[in-house]
Amino acid sequence: MASYLISGSSRGLGLALVAELAAKPASDVSKIFAAVRTETNEVKQLAADHRGRVELISMDATSEDSIRAAVGKVEQSLGGQGLDVLVNVAGMSSVALGGIEHMDDLMSLFNVNVMSAHQVIRAYLPVLRKGNMKKIANISTTVGSITMAPTFREIPTPAYKISKAALNMLTVQYALSLEDQGFTTIAVSPGWIKTPIGGENADLDVGTASKATLDVIIQSGPESNGKFLNIHVPGWENSPGLNQYEGGQPAW
Amino acid sequence: MASYLISGSSRGLGLALVAELAAKPASDVSKIFAAVRTETNEVKQLAADHRGRVELISMDATSEDSIRAAVGKVEQSLGGQGLDVLVNVAGMSSVALGGIEHMDDLMSLFNVNVMSAHQVIRAYLPVLRKGNMKKIANISTTVGSITMAPTFREIPTPAYKISKAALNMLTVQYALSLEDQGFTTIAVSPGWIKTPIGGENADLDVGTASKATLDVIIQSGPESNGKFLNIHVPGWENSPGLNQYEGGQPAW
Repeated sequence: MASYLISGSSRGLGLALVAELAAKPASDVSKIFAAVRTETNEVKQLAADHRGRVELISMDATSEDSIRAAVGKVEQSLGGQGLDVLVNVAGMSSVALGGIEHMDDLMSLFNVNVMSAHQVIRAYLPVLRKGNMKKIANISTTVGSITMAPTFREIPTPAYKISKAALNMLTVQYALSLEDQGFTTIAVSPGWIKTPIGGENADLDVGTASKATLDVIIQSGPESNGKFLNIHVPGWENSPGLNQYEGGQPAW
Repeated sequence: MASYLISGSSRGLGLALVAELAAKPASDVSKIFAAVRTETNEVKQLAADHRGRVELISMDATSEDSIRAAVGKVEQSLGGQGLDVLVNVAGMSSVALGGIEHMDDLMSLFNVNVMSAHQVIRAYLPVLRKGNMKKIANISTTVGSITMAPTFREIPTPAYKISKAALNMLTVQYALSLEDQGFTTIAVSPGWIKTPIGGENADLDVGTASKATLDVIIQSGPESNGKFLNIHVPGWENSPGLNQYEGGQPAW
């Protein structure tokens, strides 16, 4: 029986992770906090369909005050119990056409994709320390792999790539810092997904990706601490040549 | 005959690189622009000792206006010639004691160590495009290697580490973006140096490190584009076990 908080639950991968968790038996998943900046109809419907298990939490991950208020509500709802798993999904991408010299939003992407994860993690640490699983998963991407950068050179999202490389280092720094306290902190690449960020030509539908992402998160224990993990999608093992759906670890 | 601009020339590695360049014959190094936010006595002395070759340029790399004004002065001084080599040294470190959750300066380190490099590079691109060498070197560090993070876990500088990982990805993105235009863009790890950032217990004196760093920059051609390069310091090959003074490439 584990409790989860998913940031960025209003749409895309975050929303699908909440749905995936809600479909699991209450004996596995006791509580799902769906943290959202904007309440979409989809996430409201999920909360209505699973009243008492899926709880909407208003949280703007770029605002310390908003995060602090959200932590208060989560603690109140848990009634002294700990939070077991924190999944940082909230994030954004952006396009810079004509080369990286036209990138005008680097600081704002650092703020949304890196600083927010930092603020959310540290704000939830007290309630995570009371949890049994002490697990933190940051949603990253192979596009944030410096080693694989030549493979993705045609994708015109430099600020996204740079911020995700930074998120990977943030993840490892948390992993090293919290290891002695029994935490498992990982970065997960959920693949290229048909979401607002991934677009319609992406490889995976969001249900397939969210199921595989959740499998990685559930299966990761202390031996995975500080690692960058691919999902495993049966049937996609040899496609599209990046080995990103076969499990294992992308290079940093 | 090549012209250089070194950012962060007021002290430490930047100042030593200016001195190293100034000691080379004018047939190798025609002009050295020592870009500084603060004019120290040391850099003023260097400019006085090498009048006409070492030129002080006032530039706050965190200010677009200041960078633009500096580019104007450099262009004027070059009189229609191009700038050959840009070396981004300006940067800072910071300490967070008690674990990464106490890190309160992540955005300001992103600004100084990553955003500034981006702003400086793109502002100098027009004058670099007119140069013969088209070389950009960003001073990074093995401490910014995500792969090597466990080795450096006891160094309490999480914001520095995260920002340098981001700088590495910025470097690779520029390398890929400018490759077709004949540019060589590299990240160089100058080792652990006795500077204001490295402290007194560091491995190398700044003269040794700056000489070896300049060797890497001078020797790097298009085959090094997008790479993370160690310096080579004779006598330090097997010490202190990190292979960081043997040349070659640190893992990202």
